[in-house]
Amino acid sequence: MNVNTPVAATSADSKPRPELARGIWPPAATPFRADLNIDFERYFIHCKRLLAEGAHGLAVLGTTSEALSLDLGERELVLERLIKAGVPASQLLPGTGAASIGDAVRLTRHAVSLGVRGVLLLPPFYYKGVSDAGLYAFVAEVIKRVNDKRLQVYLYNFPQMTSIQWSPDLVGLLVQDFPGIVVGLKDSSGDIEYLNTLLDSYPGFAVFPSSESNLLDALRRGAAGCISATANTHCANIRNLYDNWEDSANAENMHHLCAAVRAAVGPFGWIPGVKAILSAREGTPDWNRTRPPLEALDTRRKAELLSAVAAAGG
Amino acid sequence: MNVNTPVAATSADSKPRPELARGIWPPAATPFRADLNIDFERYFIHCKRLLAEGAHGLAVLGTTSEALSLDLGERELVLERLIKAGVPASQLLPGTGAASIGDAVRLTRHAVSLGVRGVLLLPPFYYKGVSDAGLYAFVAEVIKRVNDKRLQVYLYNFPQMTSIQWSPDLVGLLVQDFPGIVVGLKDSSGDIEYLNTLLDSYPGFAVFPSSESNLLDALRRGAAGCISATANTHCANIRNLYDNWEDSANAENMHHLCAAVRAAVGPFGWIPGVKAILSAREGTPDWNRTRPPLEALDTRRKAELLSAVAAAGG
Repeated sequence: MNVNTPVAATSADSKPRPELARGIWPPAATPFRADLNIDFERYFIHCKRLLAEGAHGLAVLGTTSEALSLDLGERELVLERLIKAGVPASQLLPGTGAASIGDAVRLTRHAVSLGVRGVLLLPPFYYKGVSDAGLYAFVAEVIKRVNDKRLQVYLYNFPQMTSIQWSPDLVGLLVQDFPGIVVGLKDSSGDIEYLNTLLDSYPGFAVFPSSESNLLDALRRGAAGCISATANTHCANIRNLYDNWEDSANAENMHHLCAAVRAAVGPFGWIPGVKAILSAREGTPDWNRTRPPLEALDTRRKAELLSAVAAAGG
Repeated sequence: MNVNTPVAATSADSKPRPELARGIWPPAATPFRADLNIDFERYFIHCKRLLAEGAHGLAVLGTTSEALSLDLGERELVLERLIKAGVPASQLLPGTGAASIGDAVRLTRHAVSLGVRGVLLLPPFYYKGVSDAGLYAFVAEVIKRVNDKRLQVYLYNFPQMTSIQWSPDLVGLLVQDFPGIVVGLKDSSGDIEYLNTLLDSYPGFAVFPSSESNLLDALRRGAAGCISATANTHCANIRNLYDNWEDSANAENMHHLCAAVRAAVGPFGWIPGVKAILSAREGTPDWNRTRPPLEALDTRRKAELLSAVAAAGG
């Protein structure tokens, strides 16, 4: 397989393509009841509030959503119930990645059948040291088996969790061989060089950094938007930055606010941090709960986090 | 949670306990057809041959088995069909690990209901940087939900794949809090210091190194046996070593043969290596096939491997 000749996303695409996702797509956090079951009512409220605060859509069932701590049936149920609760499927970009082709196909086919905007696809994340050719074969097999013209794949790059990177060469090859299907990438690596390589190499390919701290620079280089954990807690700020990025004075101010809030949360861990803030904001201990193996913040850490966020103006 | 006071496995165990697994339990490789479906007939033949060659049982559905590239339904089906094909459930030690509590419970409950000897449990392997307390909560929740007195858990330690280690302190705590349930550990880390710490700290706890190269030393320190990828290809040698480890002259000879064969396969990757050897031995290209993201050896590498193994006397 030749992985050395990246080709632009739009060059060879002849079939009609659904509108690409753009803008702010928070990876909505998933609240759990004391018995660790999903608190659907609280979840629907949270998702709808994010949309009301300016989210263009929701990147549900990602890492921040603790989707990999949900079982396969729950991952299907969340989508079905969210759509039934009134969130349009076209505003959903669910994670459908799994370690096996079969499970990834099941989740992807189900999501596409519900009419979602696209899916975020992790690389198969159990085996390590795998080759680009092996990853290519995985993606190709998933696309072939899902076999649905509505499918749009956004690659999900998070080497800190998977120990695997979608290399820029492999991205180029997938974009070339699956035009209109492999259409974007969410980059959670925090590796600016990697992000910029993707932004510069594949115009028209929808790249989403995972941090609002990088968003202004990324938008200037052509990023599609942002999928950030902390969009769960200050979505309106990030939307404001997105809407005003070409107005340089305002944009810099919004950038500094966004970056300060983001920096305040980071040391506490994105998932426990976001949940602790939501817990405080709603005045309920119920948001401050994670599924094992993750742990929620204890009272002291929660207080420290809230002080840090307040000091950052968030 | 106090994780600082390891306690011996046998100290507080009042309820009747099934016989612990001991001896050579190969992690049977899984053959795939050209369409990537499991080749069950070939699989049954392979499993029965391993037992005929001296395996005490089979650690099916582990890493070498590409279990994490099977979907959840397939992982259940493999067990059901293998037992139906005549392999006694009491000689099966399947991997039932998953990233989520729900999926791990589903697989574990299913396996236990079939009467398997025990299960090999990976830590939840998506989220990284998790604490011992988070891992403890995961295991405790799985045990609580499976809720079956027949359950025996062998922890599966493979930090190269999971980036997570079952720390000796956590192992001690689980052994203490779940006597007769958390009864052993398979160590695929290759970290001799870790292995020896477990062997020395928890007498009665069934520890299986993943390499026949370490087996003689490990048996002298009280190991229960061995669960090695390369037992797929030279099971009789490893059984011979296991049976004669107290006969020092013979044991050293067998050790050197086992270690040489193991060392010959290593550079080719355990899974593609084992499959290439089985392919050559059976005169069929069909064994030389992996599921993505793994890749089989090409003709040149396969020939190199076979030469290396022949030179090692395997």
